[in-house]
This record gives sequence, structure tokens and C-alpha cells, in this order.
Amino acid sequence: MTKVISGGVTAPKGFEAAGIEAGIKYANRKDMALIYSILPCIGAGTFTSNIVKAAPVKWDKKLIEESPFIQAVVVNTGIANAGTGAGGMKCAMDTAEEAAKLLGLPTEAVLVGSTGVIGPLLPMDRIKAGIAQLVQKKAATPEAGADAARAIMTTDTHPKEYAVQLEIGGVTVTLGAISKGSGMIHPNMCTMLSFVCTDAVISKETLTPLVKESVVDTYNMISVDGDTSTNDTFVVLANGAAGNPEILPGTKEYEAFKEALYMINEHQAKALAGDGEGATALVECQVIHSDTKENACLLAKSVISSSLTKAAIFGHDANWGRILCAMGYSGAMFDPDDLAIWIEANGEKILLCENGVGQDYSEEAATRVLSQKEIKIICDMRMGEAQATAWGCDLSYEYVRINGDYRS
Amino acid sequence: MTKVISGGVTAPKGFEAAGIEAGIKYANRKDMALIYSILPCIGAGTFTSNIVKAAPVKWDKKLIEESPFIQAVVVNTGIANAGTGAGGMKCAMDTAEEAAKLLGLPTEAVLVGSTGVIGPLLPMDRIKAGIAQLVQKKAATPEAGADAARAIMTTDTHPKEYAVQLEIGGVTVTLGAISKGSGMIHPNMCTMLSFVCTDAVISKETLTPLVKESVVDTYNMISVDGDTSTNDTFVVLANGAAGNPEILPGTKEYEAFKEALYMINEHQAKALAGDGEGATALVECQVIHSDTKENACLLAKSVISSSLTKAAIFGHDANWGRILCAMGYSGAMFDPDDLAIWIEANGEKILLCENGVGQDYSEEAATRVLSQKEIKIICDMRMGEAQATAWGCDLSYEYVRINGDYRS
Repeated sequence: MTKVISGGVTAPKGFEAAGIEAGIKYANRKDMALIYSILPCIGAGTFTSNIVKAAPVKWDKKLIEESPFIQAVVVNTGIANAGTGAGGMKCAMDTAEEAAKLLGLPTEAVLVGSTGVIGPLLPMDRIKAGIAQLVQKKAATPEAGADAARAIMTTDTHPKEYAVQLEIGGVTVTLGAISKGSGMIHPNMCTMLSFVCTDAVISKETLTPLVKESVVDTYNMISVDGDTSTNDTFVVLANGAAGNPEILPGTKEYEAFKEALYMINEHQAKALAGDGEGATALVECQVIHSDTKENACLLAKSVISSSLTKAAIFGHDANWGRILCAMGYSGAMFDPDDLAIWIEANGEKILLCENGVGQDYSEEAATRVLSQKEIKIICDMRMGEAQATAWGCDLSYEYVRINGDYRS
Repeated sequence: MTKVISGGVTAPKGFEAAGIEAGIKYANRKDMALIYSILPCIGAGTFTSNIVKAAPVKWDKKLIEESPFIQAVVVNTGIANAGTGAGGMKCAMDTAEEAAKLLGLPTEAVLVGSTGVIGPLLPMDRIKAGIAQLVQKKAATPEAGADAARAIMTTDTHPKEYAVQLEIGGVTVTLGAISKGSGMIHPNMCTMLSFVCTDAVISKETLTPLVKESVVDTYNMISVDGDTSTNDTFVVLANGAAGNPEILPGTKEYEAFKEALYMINEHQAKALAGDGEGATALVECQVIHSDTKENACLLAKSVISSSLTKAAIFGHDANWGRILCAMGYSGAMFDPDDLAIWIEANGEKILLCENGVGQDYSEEAATRVLSQKEIKIICDMRMGEAQATAWGCDLSYEYVRINGDYRS
């Protein structure tokens, strides 16, 4: 059984972290983070499918594929280091090199992550000064992990860390994560920045497909604004410090670890969606009884991505026609005359549409449901046994404000 | 040469129109329109690709395909007659039947159009009373055309009519249009509601492919909010009243008529995009030197559909990274290190990005360009000779307000 514990990336054994103020963009807030493992880690990850890839994404992708081990991650916010050409690539490499020098590691053991404005080059003097601070302050404490979670935030309103524990062959194995999201969130491979650390003993060959499988139903099923970022990065680092018997495919331990990884990823993905820029509510769309998994995914993502549906939820308006409309242009085939749509929150469930036709529900009750912080939309396609869940948020004035003056 | 003239659907010979207050949803504003031809028309049209199709779309689609001639269109706003099942289909047919009776036409000669809230059934008593008024008031005057243009508006801020004239074989041929848009605008086959009337002599066989070709670069290249409506309808009616020699494929007259039709459709499409819900600016994205037309379309539509780009334009922020990002997730392949991005308005043109890297432009000048009412984004892909243009608008607080309480 997987259980939730407190903490984040420093919860698993052998991981240290830090978060400091490097003054890259914001004043008086943490904007650089370090994750460090006292042991070499095997790494697996997925990265943005946007063909405009930020320099740190290119660097990390290469390392995850080719480097024999990973032992640290340096992250900055404020500047995305995307749209920066060869100069940006040099910044990413110099960042890794500086951290490697101070940590006594090969440069190829240091991942980098950046998030913020596309275009400007990183201020390398501040980045280097920041790295020195990070290396000095790194610690294995919960506080250090929390500092790192806070330091990777941009327009996020709260840090997102999470940790779970399970038993593998009688040995306690821990997984801990930090993530940031908020805007430019419509992941397609993985999400903005999310790092999971674990002390599990597991090989790269076993971990890599597990990671790719896990993002499909988690990070790839959320959307804030339909914009797939240039910097999406999801990395899992495993340092083996737990000393469990190695997790091998086809075993029940493998299934247990997979479930734990899914649990942490689902939690973080939902946290990213619910804290989308300007969001006042987390919106979950469950598509059930679809003919195929692929169609269920298309339908669920189309509903949570619809600007009109999102604005209606912000207005607490049970405008189910917009949900039906969004399913209609999703690309999935279905019979509009044969489905049902419910909304649900706080234990209250209301049937809005049956066989494609509006029902005689209480607008008052519907408004009550849509005023909650977590709202579920359930679409029963009545075609088969496939299902999918996607998460998003409402569209508020605040989203427009945040993105209307993001750079100023 | 095609020239712009004043007027709308009553500009071509033999067309009458009317717009009246039927009290369907709004108080003190016109909400029903009639277009009537004194002669039978051949009709061609394209309709929403949303698989949830409104009852009027199903009715019109069948008539355009099967009916020997069309002679009238009845439109109501306030209620979309979508998501209404068999009851809604009966409403659509009853509307056509009532108009046919009063106009002395076969029911199969009357198209219907609806736009508004999805879900409720049409109040048929008010619809029938409205039809009686429409039939009584219909006239061939510019005022009657303007009344119809105004009556089909929902959240549009101004009516959209347009008319052009050209010579075909020494005879003056006129085309006139009325359109409405504003929200749920991401047409995929055609746009919300747009009707073009012409007195040209042209066969259905000649007109139908022309209509399908014309929407590709016009209505299908606009987006307000990414939501493809259930009610999108674009219909061209030709009554032959001009008495020109029949327009035949492969002739220069055919090319001239095609150009005139394109001109009217492009104008109306741009008018819809520029009057998108809450819009403060019309945004045009021109993709040039793309490898294929298909990729040029994908790129241009992705840019004008990006919520982040739209919000940045609302904030007059030259955030070219969001434009680059939107191209990157469009699905088209290109080399991000090989392109250039400009913005242009009012004769001022600014290079923001060259070879994928930000340029040293004046933020003040960029803000001045982005404060105009019509803004052009030019993306030079440097790959080939294909190009495409798409139109959209910015994303404002007002969009959220309109759609947060649309039904209330």
C-alpha cells in the first residue's frame, strides 16, 4: 500500500535540496533551486513535444539519453532560456559546468531547468553566484526541500511538493516531488517542470518506460490555456539509497512502484491544473463508457480546454451546451443523441443533459455545485468501456491580467 | 474589377430582407431576420464540422443538397436550437413551414438559421408571430438589409454587411452579405452565420465548388476562442436576376466572380474576427515562405488561437516568445533557428526575432504598434513559397465577462 507522507524531494534517502534568491527577475523571492543526490542516480524523463525547445530541454534530453548517471538539477525561474539560439545553449552548459565544479561532479551529471520569459539570455553572473549559494545551503531537511519547491514557482500561487512511501521486499521506498505550472500549460509529453526523486533501486531500463507510461494519464491530461510550453520537463531520479531488492518488470513490486509513481504524478498534475493562472476552481472531466481510450482522452481534454466552458464555470453557469459543443469538435466520433452529462461537487451530483437533451435541473443547485473549488464534469458516452480523466481550471479575469502584463 | 458598394443582402437585384423584434430572448432589440428572393435561387453552402449539429444546420444541409431551389432564409437569435433532439428538429421544420405558407413557397425552399444558447427549445408562438411580421415588412431597400444584418447579431457589437459589384459579360453582377460572429468562433468548414446573396446567373454545379474553395482561406482562417460552434452556417444564394451570360468554369468571368466572392468572404471573416467577443484589436497573422500551404495554415491559425499570445496583445506586450511557442506546437515542422517574426501596424514594422533569437527593438515602438486596432504578425519561415493568413483578436477581461454570464 502506498501512503502519503509529508515533504517533497528531500523525503527519499540521500537527496538534498536548496532554494535561494539569485535576483534573476523577481526581488525578494527565491528564484533558483538545486536538487542534489549524495549518490549517482539513474534518470528518466519526458520533455516538451513543442519543436521550439528551450536550451535546458535540449541539454537535459541529451543527458537523460546518454549520460551514465545524473546527480544534480539546477533550476532558475524568471527567464526560460528559450528562443536564445547558440548563446542560450552555452548558458545552459555553463550553468551545468559551474554546478558540477562546485559539487565535484562531471558536467554530464548535472541537469538544468529554466522557466520564465522566452527571449532573453540568462544573466550568468547572477546564475553563478546563485549556484555557489545553492551548493553551500543544500541540505537533506524538509525545509530545504520546501525552499526548492518555492524557488521553482513563477505565477504559481503556492508551492507543489508531495511525497509517498511504499514497501518493496520489506524495505521502505520513498518518492518525493516538486513541480511548478500555472501558465503555458497544455503538456504534450510532460508538464512544465516536475521532478520526482526516489531512493528506490531500479534500473534505467525499467524506469524509462514506467515514466513514459505514467505521464500519459497524468501530466498529459491537464491544460490551463492550451499552450504547450517550450520548456516542459519531467524527470525522475532514482539513487538506490533505500537498498530494496531491485524492482523488476512483471513483479508485484513493479506494479506497486508503478502505482506509487502514478499517485505522485496524478497529485502533482492536479495541483498544477488547480493552480492554473487565475484559476478559482480545479475542473475535472471524466469521460466514461467511450468506445476507445484515445477518444475518451480527446473528449476529456477538449472539454477542459474549451475557453467557453472555462468561462462559464468561472461564472458558475451550468452551460452544458458548451460542454456538448466541445465534445463535438474534439475529433472523436459519438452520437450526440445518446449521451449524458453530469456535474458533481461536494457530494452533490446533477444531471444536466440526457440523450443529448437538456434536463429540468435546478439552476440554483447547479450554481451551488459550480461554486465549489473542485468541480467534476462527467460525460457518459454510452458506447463502450473506455474512460479517461482530464484536469483543467476556469478562465478568469485574473488569467487575462497575469498574461496581459507578464513581462512588465 | 470588383468594386465595393454600400449595402448588404438587398444590394443584388431581386432580394428582399427584414429584421424585427420577436422577443425570443432580448428585450428592445431585433432578433429575427428574413432574406427573401423574388426568384428561385440555386443555393450552395458549408456547415459546421462539429459532430453536434444544431437542428437548423441539419435542415439546411439537407435542403442545400436535395432541394431544387431555395427562396428564403429565416434566422433567429437568442436560442441556438442545438442540443434539442427531435423536438428541436420539429421546431426547425415548423419554422420553415410557417414561412413557406406565408410566402407561398414549398417548405423545402426555406432555410432556417439559429444562434444563441444551446439547450432550450424555440418558443414557436413567438417565432410564428415573428415570421408574420418579417413577411409583412420585407423590402428590397438598403434599410431592410441593414435591419436583417442587425437582427442576426448576438454579442456582436456592430452589424456586418458588405456588398461588391463586378461586370460579367457587360452585365453588372452584385453580391451582398450579412454575417454574425463574436463567440464560439473557430470555424471549421465555415463560420457562425454568413449569408451571401447574388443576382448572378450561375449553376449549382459551378457555384458549389466555388463556395467550398472560398471558405478555406476566409472563414476557416479565423478564430475568436477556439470553440467550433454547433451552428456554423455559410450559404450563398444566387437568383440570376442580373441576367448576365452564365458564369462557366474555366472562363475569365469565372475567375472574376471567384475573386468577388473571395473579397466579400475575406471582408466578412475579418469583420467577425475583429469583433470577437471582448476584442480590442483585429490580429492578422501572415505566414510567408512556408514549405507547404497546409503548414502555413497550421502555423497562422496556431498563432492567432494562442491564449497567451492573445493576452499579450491585449496588454500591448511584444512577447514574441509566445508567438514562437505557438508555432512550435502547431504540428507543422520548421527550424526555429531559421525564422523571423515582425509586427506591423499603421505603416510601422518592427523585427522582433531573427534566426529564432530576440532582436534589440524599441519596446516603446512595439507597444505603439500593439496599441493599434489592426495588428499584423508576420512570420517568415524561410523554407519555401507557401503562405497563409489567419485572423483573430486579443483576449480581454471583457471576453471573460461576456462568457462568464452569457446565460444570465
